[in-house]
Amino acid sequence: LKKINVGVIGLGRIGKLHADNVLKFIPDLQLQAVADVNLDEAWYCERNINKAYSAPEPIIEDPDIDAVLICSPTPTHVPLIISAAKAGKHIFCEKPVALEIDAIQQALDVVNETGITFQIGFNRRFDPNFKKIHQAVVDGEVGAPHLVRITSYDPAPPPPEYVAQSGGIFLDMSIHDFDMARYLAGSEIVEIFATGGVLVNKWIGEAGDVDTAIIQLKFANGALGVIDNCRQAAYGYDQRVEVFGAKGNISAHNKTPTNTVLSTAEGVVADKPHHFFLERYQDSYIGELQAFADSITQQKPSITDPKDGLMAARVALAAKQSFEAHQTIKLD
Amino acid sequence: LKKINVGVIGLGRIGKLHADNVLKFIPDLQLQAVADVNLDEAWYCERNINKAYSAPEPIIEDPDIDAVLICSPTPTHVPLIISAAKAGKHIFCEKPVALEIDAIQQALDVVNETGITFQIGFNRRFDPNFKKIHQAVVDGEVGAPHLVRITSYDPAPPPPEYVAQSGGIFLDMSIHDFDMARYLAGSEIVEIFATGGVLVNKWIGEAGDVDTAIIQLKFANGALGVIDNCRQAAYGYDQRVEVFGAKGNISAHNKTPTNTVLSTAEGVVADKPHHFFLERYQDSYIGELQAFADSITQQKPSITDPKDGLMAARVALAAKQSFEAHQTIKLD
Amino acid sequence: LKKINVGVIGLGRIGKLHADNVLKFIPDLQLQAVADVNLDEAWYCERNINKAYSAPEPIIEDPDIDAVLICSPTPTHVPLIISAAKAGKHIFCEKPVALEIDAIQQALDVVNETGITFQIGFNRRFDPNFKKIHQAVVDGEVGAPHLVRITSYDPAPPPPEYVAQSGGIFLDMSIHDFDMARYLAGSEIVEIFATGGVLVNKWIGEAGDVDTAIIQLKFANGALGVIDNCRQAAYGYDQRVEVFGAKGNISAHNKTPTNTVLSTAEGVVADKPHHFFLERYQDSYIGELQAFADSITQQKPSITDPKDGLMAARVALAAKQSFEAHQTIKLD
Amino acid sequence: LKKINVGVIGLGRIGKLHADNVLKFIPDLQLQAVADVNLDEAWYCERNINKAYSAPEPIIEDPDIDAVLICSPTPTHVPLIISAAKAGKHIFCEKPVALEIDAIQQALDVVNETGITFQIGFNRRFDPNFKKIHQAVVDGEVGAPHLVRITSYDPAPPPPEYVAQSGGIFLDMSIHDFDMARYLAGSEIVEIFATGGVLVNKWIGEAGDVDTAIIQLKFANGALGVIDNCRQAAYGYDQRVEVFGAKGNISAHNKTPTNTVLSTAEGVVADKPHHFFLERYQDSYIGELQAFADSITQQKPSITDPKDGLMAARVALAAKQSFEAHQTIKLD
Repeated sequence: LKKINVGVIGLGRIGKLHADNVLKFIPDLQLQAVADVNLDEAWYCERNINKAYSAPEPIIEDPDIDAVLICSPTPTHVPLIISAAKAGKHIFCEKPVALEIDAIQQALDVVNETGITFQIGFNRRFDPNFKKIHQAVVDGEVGAPHLVRITSYDPAPPPPEYVAQSGGIFLDMSIHDFDMARYLAGSEIVEIFATGGVLVNKWIGEAGDVDTAIIQLKFANGALGVIDNCRQAAYGYDQRVEVFGAKGNISAHNKTPTNTVLSTAEGVVADKPHHFFLERYQDSYIGELQAFADSITQQKPSITDPKDGLMAARVALAAKQSFEAHQTIKLD
Repeated sequence: LKKINVGVIGLGRIGKLHADNVLKFIPDLQLQAVADVNLDEAWYCERNINKAYSAPEPIIEDPDIDAVLICSPTPTHVPLIISAAKAGKHIFCEKPVALEIDAIQQALDVVNETGITFQIGFNRRFDPNFKKIHQAVVDGEVGAPHLVRITSYDPAPPPPEYVAQSGGIFLDMSIHDFDMARYLAGSEIVEIFATGGVLVNKWIGEAGDVDTAIIQLKFANGALGVIDNCRQAAYGYDQRVEVFGAKGNISAHNKTPTNTVLSTAEGVVADKPHHFFLERYQDSYIGELQAFADSITQQKPSITDPKDGLMAARVALAAKQSFEAHQTIKLD
Repeated sequence: LKKINVGVIGLGRIGKLHADNVLKFIPDLQLQAVADVNLDEAWYCERNINKAYSAPEPIIEDPDIDAVLICSPTPTHVPLIISAAKAGKHIFCEKPVALEIDAIQQALDVVNETGITFQIGFNRRFDPNFKKIHQAVVDGEVGAPHLVRITSYDPAPPPPEYVAQSGGIFLDMSIHDFDMARYLAGSEIVEIFATGGVLVNKWIGEAGDVDTAIIQLKFANGALGVIDNCRQAAYGYDQRVEVFGAKGNISAHNKTPTNTVLSTAEGVVADKPHHFFLERYQDSYIGELQAFADSITQQKPSITDPKDGLMAARVALAAKQSFEAHQTIKLD
Repeated sequence: LKKINVGVIGLGRIGKLHADNVLKFIPDLQLQAVADVNLDEAWYCERNINKAYSAPEPIIEDPDIDAVLICSPTPTHVPLIISAAKAGKHIFCEKPVALEIDAIQQALDVVNETGITFQIGFNRRFDPNFKKIHQAVVDGEVGAPHLVRITSYDPAPPPPEYVAQSGGIFLDMSIHDFDMARYLAGSEIVEIFATGGVLVNKWIGEAGDVDTAIIQLKFANGALGVIDNCRQAAYGYDQRVEVFGAKGNISAHNKTPTNTVLSTAEGVVADKPHHFFLERYQDSYIGELQAFADSITQQKPSITDPKDGLMAARVALAAKQSFEAHQTIKLD
C-alpha cells in the first residue's frame, strides 16, 4: 500500500493540530513538508520534518507531494486551491473556503475539472456523536425529520482583531452549524431568518458584529430548524444537537473530561463540558483526516462533498443578509 | 380560619381535574357547587356535591360561594368573568381568557374595579422544575438572561373538531409557552417571528392550521428566545426549558414515571416522558389552586398577574400574524 | 361500595403520616378513630376526627371499626395484633412486627386462624421505581437474577435514645433492605454475612451498635446479594437498588425534588436526593394503604404477605448474629 | 532529551496493544525490539521494527535497550524480572506478577537492590475517571472514606483453556479490583470475605472456578468495601466505582461509545457501555506507559509502587482462601 505524501500549508493553531494528527494517528498520510510565513523552527525540527518553507509554492510544485492541507488564512484559500488542484494535488481545506460565493465557485470549478479529491474541514461531521445521529436519521430511526435543533456556544470570544476580520458571527461561527444542519436534516436550507444581539461584549458590537444569535431555518423537505449561538458560555464549550422526527427524537449531550459525579451537602456535581474545540473535537479531527486518506486511497466519496463548503457559505451569507435586513431570505 | 367556598363552572376534562384536586388536596377550598350544560350526575353524587346546576348563574348568584373556577369553553370566559367579578367572587379562569384582546381588556377592567383576586390557569408556572428555574433566574444564578429555549410537543394532536375552533396552534398550544417565556426571561416579548409547517397530519393543514412551529422572540431586556412546538411526539409529552445567561445555564429535563434504567444486549433503556399533561403537570395543577387559595386568604399577590392572560394572548396573536405575513411583528 | 372504617393506633410521626394519607388519598378508607397515649387534641380536631382515645382498646372493641393501622412502638405490636385479629379487625402493622421470632410467629398464628387481612408496612415495595424493577425481574427482563445490590443510607442518625432501643442497625434500618432483597430476588435468603463499623458517631459505638455496615447474602435460587448501609449521608437519603441477571441489569437511581441542572463556571449541578423518607417515599406510603384497602375490598392478596415480616426479622437477627460472631449464618 | 529504547517481550493481545501505543502515543519511548515464541513477521515488518526475536534473552542482553515491557505469560514474569533487573533494564510488567507470594517477593527484592524503575500494569489507575476519584479522595472532597464499592463485570467469559490456567476468578479478574480498592481507599486491606457461585456457565464450575462473586473488604483505616464480579454481562463491560465518605460520595459511571439518546415509542435508549477493556481502557493503557516513561526520565515515583503487585496478589490469594474455607481471612 502506497503512503500519501502530505504537505501542510499554514501552521497556525489548526495547521499544527492537523500536522500532529497526521504524524500520530494517520499512518496512511506521511507528513513530508510544511510551509508558513513565520516558520517555527523548533516545532518542525522536533518532529523531524525535512522540508520546511516560508511560502506554499515549493510544496505545490513538489512532485513527491500527493496532497496538501490548506490551513492558512481564509483569503489565501481560493488561490491555493486553484494552484494546488492544477498541480494535481489532493486538497483538504479548512473552512470557510472563502467569504464570497463567486470565488468559491471558481475554486470548485477547477477542482471538478482536475478530478482531484477535495475535502472541506467540517470536522464536526466526524464527531462520533453527530455521525451516529446523522446515521440514525438516514436509517429512518426517527422517521422523517421535522425539527433540527443545534446549540453551539463558545467558551469565550476570540480577540477583537480576529473578530474584525472574521466576516462576523454567521460566517465565522454559525457556518459550522449550517453545515451540521444540512448534514443532519439530509436536505438543503431554502429559507432563513436570523436575529442577534450584543449581550456579552460591547466591543463586539462596536466592531459591527453580534455575540448572540438565533437562526431559524426551513429545509427543502419541509423540516424546520433552529440554531442558537453565543460567543461566551461560562461553563465551557456547549455543543448539542437534536433531530426530532415522525418516529422520535435523537439528541447528543455535551462531552465531558470524565463522567464522575460528586454528591455532597452542596449538591450533586458533574463535570463541565470540555473547555473548547481542541478537546471536544479531538476524535473528529482525527476522523476527518482518516476519511481524507480513505477517499484518496480507496477512491470513495468523502462524507463532505466539495459543494458543502459552497452551500454553507451561501447559507451564512443569507443569514447575515437576513439579520441586516431584518427579514427572511430565500435560497434557491 | 375560614374556608373558601368554591363553585366550578364547566366540567370537562380540566374542570373535573380541578374539582378533584380541590376535594383531595386543597383543604382551604371547599367545593360547594358545580355547573355544566351536560351534568354528569354519577360524577357529582359520588363526590357528595350538593349543589349541581346546568347553568352558571345559580353559582354566581349564590351568596355562600366565595370563588369560582371558570373551566367552560373559551367564548364563555369573558361574560362569566364580568358577572362573577361584579358578584364579588374571586376568579380562577382557565387559559386563554379569550381570543380577542379587547374582550380580555374589558374583563380585566371589571376585575380591577372590583378588586377581587383573579388568577389565570397558567399551571406550568407552578411546576417545581420551572419554578426552580424561574427562581434561579430571579436570584441571578445564571446572570442576565441571554437565551430562553422552550420545547413543547404534545403526544398526539387533538381531534379535528377541537383544532377547528382552537384558534390555531399559536393561540391554543404555544400560548402556554409564551407565558413561560415571559415568566422565565423576567421581561416582556417585544418582537416575534413565527414559522410553521404541516408535517404530521394533512387534515390539520386542511383546517388552516400548522402542526409544527418554531417561534423566535426578542425580549425588552435584549434577551433572545425560541420556542419549538409540535402536535405529535411519538415518545410522549416533551416539555423542556432552558435559560442561558451571562453566568451559566439552567435547564429542566422531562419528567418520567420512574427513573429506572434497564441495560440489556439491546441497549440501555430509560422511561419515556410522562404521556401527557395530566400526569406531567399533576403537581402544578395542585400548586396553582393552592396559590389561588393563598392569594385569597393571605391577600398576597399570585405568581400569575391578571394581565398575564392578556400579554400571552397578545403574543399569540402576534405569532399568528407573523406566521401569516411571513415577517417579524413588533409588540409595544 | 362500602367504605372501610379505620382506626389508627399510635400517633407518632408515622401514625400521623398514615392518618393524613388516609384522609387525603384513600377514599376507600374512612378514618373514624385514633388512639395515642399522649393525645394531640389540636391535631385530631383540625381533621374532624370524632373518636379519639388515649388507649387502643376502645378502637379494638368498636364494632363500627373494620380495620386498624398499628403505628405504636414495636413492643406493643404483638399484643395489639392478637387482640385486633381476635376482634376481627383487618390489620396494617408497621415494621418490625417484633424483635423476637417466637412473638412474631405467635401473632401470625392468630392472624391465620382469624383469616383477617394482614399487611406489614414494607412501604418500599410500593415505590414506583422498585415496583417496576420487581416486575421486570418477574417478567424475565433481566433473566435469572445473579446479583442484587441495595444501597441505603440515612441522612443523619436518629437520636441516641432511639438507637438504644432500636435493636441495632440490622433490625432497625437494614430490615427494610432485607425485605427489598427478598422482594427483588424473588427468593429466600439462605445465608448471610455481615460486617460493620463505627465510622460516623462514637456514641453509636458506645451504645453497642454500628453506623456503617455491609451485608452479604446468598439466596435459595443461587443468586448473591449485597446491602450497604450507613446512618449518615451528607447529601441526603441515598436509596438505590440494582438487579443483575443473565440477560442484563435494571437499576433505580435516587429521586430528587426537581430534575433541573445548573451549569456554571463552578460545575454542572443537579439536585441532591430527597432529604429523607417522608419526601422520598411519599408515593409508596400512599400506595401501601391503597393496596391494603384493595386487599380488603377485593379479597386479593397483598404484595406483602403476612410472613414477610417474619422472614425479614429472621434475616435481621441472623445479620446481627453474623456480625457478632464474625462468621456466616445459614437460614433454613 | 534522550529517548528511552524499549523492547517488548511477549506479543499476545496485550503485548501488541502496548507496542502500538508506544509507537503512536509515547514519543519518549522508542520501540526497538520485540520477542515472542511465535513471531508474527507481517506484524513487526509493517511497523518497521528492526530487532525481532523468538526469545527474550537478546533483548535483555542488548546494551542499547533501556527498558522492557514484560507481556509474556504469568509463569515467565518472575525469571524475566530478575534477569532484566540484573541487566539494569527498567521494567514494566503485566499483572499479575505471579500467583505465589514468595516468587513475587523474590522478584521485588532484586528490583529493589538494582534500583531500576519498576511498574506493574494496573492500567485502571490511569483511567481518567478513576484517577479523578482517587484524587478527590486524597483531596478530602468526600471526607474520610467509609465505603468503597466496585462493580466489575466482563462481557463474556474467556475460553475454558484460559480459565483452567488463570488461577481462578479472584486471581485473574478480581485482582484488578483489589488494586483499585487499595488505590481508592488509600489504605491496606486487612480482612476479606468472599462468596461466589456458578451462575453463568456450568463448565466454569467444572473447571473448579466460579463465574460470579461478591467480596467484602475491611481496610486498615476502618473503611469497609465490597466488590462484585461476574464473567458475563449481556450489555457489555460494566466498570463502576464509588467511594462514600464523611462528606459525600463520588462515583464513576460506565463509559460509552457516544452519548446520544434516542427517544421513540419504544423507550428512551442510550448507548451500551464499551464492549470490553480495549475500548474502555484505551486512555488508561496510554496513560500508564506515559507514566512509566516519566518515572524513568524524571526519576519521579510512579502511581503504582513495586509492592502494589505483591499486595494485590496477597489479597487475591486471601479471597480464594476465604471462598474455599467459607470464612473471613485476616491479612497483616
